[in-house]
Amino acid sequence: METSAVESLLESERPRHLEILERFVAIPSVSTDPAYKPHMAEAAAFVAERLRQAGMEAVEIHPTEGHPVVTASWRRAPGAPTVLVYGHYDVQPPEPMDAWTSPPFRAEVREGRLYARGASDDKGPMLIPIAVAEAFMRVDGRLPVNLVFLFEGEEEVSSAHLEAFVAAHRDLLAADFTLSADGAQWRADLPSVTVASRGICALEVVVRGPGKDLHSGRHGGAVVNPIQALVRLLARLHDDRGAVAVPGFYDGVEPVSEDELAAIASIQFDEAAYLAEVGAPAPGGEQGYTLLQRNWLRPTLEFNGVVGGYTGAGKKTVIPHQASAKITCRLVPGQDPQRVVSLIARHLAAAAPAGVRVEVRREPGGAPAYAIPAEHPGLALSEDILEEILGRRPVRVRMGATIPIGEIFRRVLGIHTVFFSFSTVDEDYHAPNEFFRLSSYAAGMVAWARYLQRLGSASSPPAF
Amino acid sequence: METSAVESLLESERPRHLEILERFVAIPSVSTDPAYKPHMAEAAAFVAERLRQAGMEAVEIHPTEGHPVVTASWRRAPGAPTVLVYGHYDVQPPEPMDAWTSPPFRAEVREGRLYARGASDDKGPMLIPIAVAEAFMRVDGRLPVNLVFLFEGEEEVSSAHLEAFVAAHRDLLAADFTLSADGAQWRADLPSVTVASRGICALEVVVRGPGKDLHSGRHGGAVVNPIQALVRLLARLHDDRGAVAVPGFYDGVEPVSEDELAAIASIQFDEAAYLAEVGAPAPGGEQGYTLLQRNWLRPTLEFNGVVGGYTGAGKKTVIPHQASAKITCRLVPGQDPQRVVSLIARHLAAAAPAGVRVEVRREPGGAPAYAIPAEHPGLALSEDILEEILGRRPVRVRMGATIPIGEIFRRVLGIHTVFFSFSTVDEDYHAPNEFFRLSSYAAGMVAWARYLQRLGSASSPPAF
Repeated sequence: METSAVESLLESERPRHLEILERFVAIPSVSTDPAYKPHMAEAAAFVAERLRQAGMEAVEIHPTEGHPVVTASWRRAPGAPTVLVYGHYDVQPPEPMDAWTSPPFRAEVREGRLYARGASDDKGPMLIPIAVAEAFMRVDGRLPVNLVFLFEGEEEVSSAHLEAFVAAHRDLLAADFTLSADGAQWRADLPSVTVASRGICALEVVVRGPGKDLHSGRHGGAVVNPIQALVRLLARLHDDRGAVAVPGFYDGVEPVSEDELAAIASIQFDEAAYLAEVGAPAPGGEQGYTLLQRNWLRPTLEFNGVVGGYTGAGKKTVIPHQASAKITCRLVPGQDPQRVVSLIARHLAAAAPAGVRVEVRREPGGAPAYAIPAEHPGLALSEDILEEILGRRPVRVRMGATIPIGEIFRRVLGIHTVFFSFSTVDEDYHAPNEFFRLSSYAAGMVAWARYLQRLGSASSPPAF
Repeated sequence: METSAVESLLESERPRHLEILERFVAIPSVSTDPAYKPHMAEAAAFVAERLRQAGMEAVEIHPTEGHPVVTASWRRAPGAPTVLVYGHYDVQPPEPMDAWTSPPFRAEVREGRLYARGASDDKGPMLIPIAVAEAFMRVDGRLPVNLVFLFEGEEEVSSAHLEAFVAAHRDLLAADFTLSADGAQWRADLPSVTVASRGICALEVVVRGPGKDLHSGRHGGAVVNPIQALVRLLARLHDDRGAVAVPGFYDGVEPVSEDELAAIASIQFDEAAYLAEVGAPAPGGEQGYTLLQRNWLRPTLEFNGVVGGYTGAGKKTVIPHQASAKITCRLVPGQDPQRVVSLIARHLAAAAPAGVRVEVRREPGGAPAYAIPAEHPGLALSEDILEEILGRRPVRVRMGATIPIGEIFRRVLGIHTVFFSFSTVDEDYHAPNEFFRLSSYAAGMVAWARYLQRLGSASSPPAF
């Protein structure tokens, strides 16, 4: 493949793009913590300014009930496909601060990696399509396809207000498919494309017993201990083989095709190395499936937290007045988040003993699973480009985690999402010392340029 | 009964005794938490000074491996009985702080009750015998009996170092029986004497899974969630009828005599009123027993605390690296605390799944159950005095709670313990808003004065 003028320009401008990323990560746009709110506006303004510099039109910062959404578009390629480019400018909290080698909001380049909170998730990757659009405008005065940009500030808080925004801006966002700058390469040593992500629903179970904490000697044996009731209830949520024991939980789970099962089975995956990496002495989850199948294809019910009674040093002889647990389920295609919460609530209510009151609180922000059709042309193109650049056909992988946007864009806009991100899963993006490989930054520029070029130059536009 | 000069003095000094108690509860002598350690020394010094003021001799603060023991004596009544007076100056932790109406370590009198941590357990009751001894010394220049005082600072941590102290000070503590200022009146509306207490053993179960908290999406289904393992283990500790399901747990439990069962059955006890008082919607515990039998005669296994993963507001999608639970068992005669912990540890180890490591930590300070012989003369005298003062013969009750001293004094010193406390079980002494009735403070002074006077004036000393 010959290096285009656009690619040459991008290459010559590497120092400038590094400097832009350094300025971007210096803005502490932490969406989870209200203390950072002014910096969210600052980051949104930075993104809008960058889109204007790139020559994009209709640049706009939209307030939401949460953090702002930034949009822009360029729709002067009649007949060519239209791509909705997605990314997010918010970042995870930096804590624990003392675990960082260099300050989280001051970029530092060490051994070809730029270290800073947000460098990999998603500030580095989301700057790539803007830089590519800018390069096309400067070289050709136009883009090879129509583009709409949507950058949100709430990805790290479950994209809480994104669906309402998308529903209210269907015309603005109209496109053939989404190309996401978010989502990560599964492994550093293996090119991959993500074709599915699990959904999520969240709930809290609260068991209340006596009106106040009681002395466990004076009252022990006379009242129901809420912790005892809670652990007995929670123990009913899985069976002895690790499957979820809530009636109806697996109803509607769509079977995975033989082809897809075979493709997953063919992926080289070292379970022992994985377990050593996470520090677990043995695998967990549902018997009868491989570890990758458990993680990608099977829904789960996980306890994220449990608390009740005295949890300090030493002992305190109380029967607590309440105990509670936080639960999230990861869902697969065919499962509805609201229904799953209802099934769990019903199962727990049916088993609740007299002597305690059991409440199931539904947490906001559920999302169904998402999967792109295997034959989607935008997906195939991403595979072609990655093979060209990385020298190896990427494997199709699923994500155990949840990216709500895939399902939101499909349901609200009727379009699918191709994940085309150049972050890598080992870049510690939810941990201290997050970094982004500068080689990925450069490769991503080339990849996006070729992707848009190839998409716009198809003799007949593909059917999405 | 004529009011004695000692009783008159105690009555006239009520304001002073209130002020002394206010100063005593202002010292945050929380024995469970090392952060309060300096205040333990402060409280011990306060007790020693109070004993000196009262005219007691050989006042001494003894360091131990834990918190200090304070002793004093007055042995100038040859031929009269010798009584070992017991109490404790340590208190429960004040948490949760925000549930207190007034600060836990600043006394506030509201409607005849003094509110403060430790007011009822045991600072108010333990000041009573000191005040009574002081009054005898001031009125008569002598006591009617020989007294030895022993005040410990570790009652709330299972009197961990008391046994070693008692064993090392047999001569200092030599007495005919113990009269305990600790232990509570069973009900505010019914005079009672405590004739037995349950024993205790304590342990913590820690379940460790992956080496660090993991993202519940990326890793969910691939590793064992420590909370899931913990709740399934804990759920195996009771059967569906509320009995403890640990093999061997009930081995050796001594049968209760028909007489004692009949006496318990004759006690008027309103289960509905009890449940309303503690705010529990229905009784708990072991099926097949009355509520009083469950609470007094049957051993229990109670969860005092459980914690793991994220317990803050909202949700955090983690698989925690560990989860743990604190457990105490209440034991009855025939059960050995160390053996019970071993049985539980063995039961849990046998059920531990691959993929987690389960550790059972034995907490120090277990104690077997204790019962005083039905015919003990010191017990009969306490019943006589209470009947005189409260106008009704007290019922004999057992304690669901544990007072390790009864068993320690019996085994190490060969003497029995009469519980003669004026706290009442409804005074929230292991909960926020602990209080002590000022009427009980006053009645206790009269009762102790008469008890010692009567004991010293017996024509021939009873055989203990």
